[in-house]
Amino acid sequence: MTPDDVRYDDRGLVPAVVQQHDTGEVLMVAWMTRETLAETLARGETVFWSRRRGKRWHKGETSGNTQRVVSVVADCDADVVLVAVDQGGDGVACHTGVRSCFHRPVTPG
Amino acid sequence: MTPDDVRYDDRGLVPAVVQQHDTGEVLMVAWMTRETLAETLARGETVFWSRRRGKRWHKGETSGNTQRVVSVVADCDADVVLVAVDQGGDGVACHTGVRSCFHRPVTPG
Repeated sequence: MTPDDVRYDDRGLVPAVVQQHDTGEVLMVAWMTRETLAETLARGETVFWSRRRGKRWHKGETSGNTQRVVSVVADCDADVVLVAVDQGGDGVACHTGVRSCFHRPVTPG
Repeated sequence: MTPDDVRYDDRGLVPAVVQQHDTGEVLMVAWMTRETLAETLARGETVFWSRRRGKRWHKGETSGNTQRVVSVVADCDADVVLVAVDQGGDGVACHTGVRSCFHRPVTPG
């Protein structure tokens, strides 16, 4: 399928799960529009849509922590994409300076 | 953190990325409410919210393909959860009968 075949939500967004291609580590989840998904494929680096800033976001453009795209696969109903990458730069995906954004355990409390 | 500390969207939902705990394979992405996240932790099996059916959905209740929860971790801004599981039953997460929901390559076209 192509970016045109992906199902975007009513804001025109699709969740993108970003995974380190060789270790399987889930690095982050962000959002893409049809345009930033197409740019991700064309550029070979992840490009997202920042909901907070309301603009296109080429990951690593300022930090240097770009993500080289290895593959993009949609799920069965085409409303989520899984992006296998090689996390470059210092190997840091999270803006807090750690490798993965997923570092806050959730417990029953 | 607890389910009360997770940030749900304006529909009261949070995306849950479900990953096989030992292989790192991303099996599926579904949605949880505060209540189904709390039930997931209490029960030790994944429980989601079906947006299509508008109801709670205990994964595998009818198919037998339950997912035993190993850990739940939120991301840096607490608006996505990563659920490490052991995919039981026939080891099939996808309703189409395959292991992972992610099996549709996206190409530039």
